Amino acid sequence: MPHVRVFVTLKPALLDAQGRVVQESLHSLGYKQVEQVRIGKVLDLQIASSENLPQQVEEMCKRFLANTVIEDFCYEVLS
Amino acid sequence: MPHVRVFVTLKPALLDAQGRVVQESLHSLGYKQVEQVRIGKVLDLQIASSENLPQQVEEMCKRFLANTVIEDFCYEVLS
Repeated sequence: MPHVRVFVTLKPALLDAQGRVVQESLHSLGYKQVEQVRIGKVLDLQIASSENLPQQVEEMCKRFLANTVIEDFCYEVLS
Repeated sequence: MPHVRVFVTLKPALLDAQGRVVQESLHSLGYKQVEQVRIGKVLDLQIASSENLPQQVEEMCKRFLANTVIEDFCYEVLS
């Protein structure tokens, strides 16, 4: 059964407020060397059929998993 | 400047309620072939110094980025 890993990340031009907060927290813990943090989602999908897999996954991302106005997505087929 | 990608995912034994909801939504959109969805976080870190990089990242994950009681983490150095 194919295992697909989908990454959904905020477009680079947009401020990632959550990432900013994590970066500041890391700084206050002493990790001053961390210069940027950006946070996204990773979705691990187990898909029953591998028929038209890239097409299926792309369609799911565009219709539902990612908000393509503000987010980019990419995916890799792991098995 | 090293770019490190950290994955934080719920331990496999735990129910991923958010993933379950996404799976059911995909089913109701017609993607019945999706058998499981698990959702995690991906953190892209830009780190100024590559000194002791694996140690640094591991420490940050254990202290702050992951809750190791319920979450697993792994990371890869991208550049």
